[in-house]
Amino acid sequence: MAWEYLQPVTIRFGEGSVGELEKVASELNCKRGLLVSDPFFVKSGLAQKIVAGSNGVLVDIYSEISPNPEVREVDACAKLIKEKKVDFLVALGGGSALDCAKASGTICFTEDSICKYHGTGEVLPKQHLPLIAIPTTAGTGSEVTCVAVLSNKELGKKGPINCNNFYPAVALIDPELTYTLPPYMTASTGIDVLCHALEGFWSKGHQPVCDALALHASHIVFQYLRIVCKDPSNREARAKMAEASVIAGMAFTLPKTTSSHACSFPLTNMLHIPHGEACGLTLDYFARINADAQNGRIHEFAKKLGFKDMYEMADAIYDLKKEIGLRTDLKEYHLTDEQIQDLVDGSTHPNLYNNPVEITKEMLQEMYQSMR
Amino acid sequence: MAWEYLQPVTIRFGEGSVGELEKVASELNCKRGLLVSDPFFVKSGLAQKIVAGSNGVLVDIYSEISPNPEVREVDACAKLIKEKKVDFLVALGGGSALDCAKASGTICFTEDSICKYHGTGEVLPKQHLPLIAIPTTAGTGSEVTCVAVLSNKELGKKGPINCNNFYPAVALIDPELTYTLPPYMTASTGIDVLCHALEGFWSKGHQPVCDALALHASHIVFQYLRIVCKDPSNREARAKMAEASVIAGMAFTLPKTTSSHACSFPLTNMLHIPHGEACGLTLDYFARINADAQNGRIHEFAKKLGFKDMYEMADAIYDLKKEIGLRTDLKEYHLTDEQIQDLVDGSTHPNLYNNPVEITKEMLQEMYQSMR
Repeated sequence: MAWEYLQPVTIRFGEGSVGELEKVASELNCKRGLLVSDPFFVKSGLAQKIVAGSNGVLVDIYSEISPNPEVREVDACAKLIKEKKVDFLVALGGGSALDCAKASGTICFTEDSICKYHGTGEVLPKQHLPLIAIPTTAGTGSEVTCVAVLSNKELGKKGPINCNNFYPAVALIDPELTYTLPPYMTASTGIDVLCHALEGFWSKGHQPVCDALALHASHIVFQYLRIVCKDPSNREARAKMAEASVIAGMAFTLPKTTSSHACSFPLTNMLHIPHGEACGLTLDYFARINADAQNGRIHEFAKKLGFKDMYEMADAIYDLKKEIGLRTDLKEYHLTDEQIQDLVDGSTHPNLYNNPVEITKEMLQEMYQSMR
Repeated sequence: MAWEYLQPVTIRFGEGSVGELEKVASELNCKRGLLVSDPFFVKSGLAQKIVAGSNGVLVDIYSEISPNPEVREVDACAKLIKEKKVDFLVALGGGSALDCAKASGTICFTEDSICKYHGTGEVLPKQHLPLIAIPTTAGTGSEVTCVAVLSNKELGKKGPINCNNFYPAVALIDPELTYTLPPYMTASTGIDVLCHALEGFWSKGHQPVCDALALHASHIVFQYLRIVCKDPSNREARAKMAEASVIAGMAFTLPKTTSSHACSFPLTNMLHIPHGEACGLTLDYFARINADAQNGRIHEFAKKLGFKDMYEMADAIYDLKKEIGLRTDLKEYHLTDEQIQDLVDGSTHPNLYNNPVEITKEMLQEMYQSMR
């Protein structure tokens, strides 16, 4: 079996590590930075606090970023980068601030709009600003991936750009930033971690380094996600989930995600179910579908986590979701036949073809019907 | 808990992957390379075969390398690099060719001898040639580490140089190169893999990414080392041990090794026991000593591998060594009291202080006495 592994991001993990920002920047020989922040942290004051604590190294904040970042927001951020003549970026937030910073850190070296490269196959130039990524949820793993998902409302287009430029130079992971995450967001982002680990493991592109990391991250989710949802102030559980999140990020970025992520897109777009919960909704379903594939290695994975087999693990995923208050069906939506069909049609995202078992439209139809 | 993780080496793994050398070099924008080879592979003809298959990309071979590479060999290699005006290096061999290539790839940009930097604390300049590392044993993990161990016979000095320059650009791992490794070498290098994994795990510098990788590598050693020693032509087992070796390399390079590696140095220097076997000799002893340390996480590791606890795993290490024909004592040497004392004194290498339990001279005395 042939495989390849690459993970160029330096990870710095620790409670209070966001206070080391100036030091981290100086180790990268960076002197003048822009903070690209989720607007929530401008309202909460955290963004300003980080700028104030940076000893003048951060000179401004860009925060006009939608939950699904728009191409025009990337262009606006790139414009500010040029105006302020900064030599590095810091991204603070969940996935969206990181996506915006990744893309604008390259596009700022051109006169182009990011539109030129969004879903066009056009290759981005290699020059880019170093990025320090500071995740504020334990979920996306975006701090160790080289993908940015962008939307273009005008063209009705949403899709990823993959580019090695987009790997942050440093992922600065401070579990303290997740202490205030509300229980629902904790649960939704937390189940996304399990999706990253499990989908990375059974993806057609699986490989051994990522397998080892997927096992580690899954172990933590089963051990700590319940605890952190019940007791959001449990510091140990917060730290372990932050650890699981970055390690699951490393586990899926090369093998890529599969069926549950593919199905999450219409669930989010049509029914507005947040990303993590939308991914988790179908995870136990696909765990059963995939259980016997790949010569027993999927059952083996479940066994290493203490389950009898992947069927038992699928039950445990269902129970976990129930317990932490996430949806296990779609009953409340009273879906019409047409809506079910739209969900089926919307689930044929390229990630679906990374799934170890071929997922037909009939299977998707049956799955969504069973959730009705 | 605070931790940091960095692993800049791109790993390419696969049977026959050595045939992709030209492609790998071209992806690195490299055009003219020097092969730094263990002399054994010049005798066997493999080195010449690789040069011939490189389509003119490799222009010469440097192979004057001792099993414990000498500073003067590094200087001679650097001289050839300058003469041949190459823009990258390929290292082929066990640890020694890699050590020589790592050091000469930096020193070639200076007018200095490597002696200036060997054990002096002097910092190497940052410029260095890209290195493609091709390991020929499943053991050292040197292809993913940034350390080169060098000797200076004249000064009676042997020691490591750690430098971020020394990370290879690419580790090209072709399990086929290990097919011809004799059974004893397979056993000795194979037990070194287990030492890397276990010592990396219980090192004071342990951290979660490396923990996950240590578990994965250990699992493979227990599953496949016996098989590959009994049946050296078993391709699956050879591939799995090559996988375990590189993943254990990733698992120890940051946390560093501990007591068993510290003790291996006098065992190799005084009794000429090869490195892997020398490390393995004390591994089960230290597994017992360390078993109850670190709040149960060492027993937890053993449990995840299917053992009742680390004591049972220590027994299994002993049995494994017996079965694959490695020493479990030092009886054959009829050691004098003075020699025992020399072994004790020689074991106080800095790595000893990474061990989770403080190892006193009395403990070392007792250990070596029990092996007499």
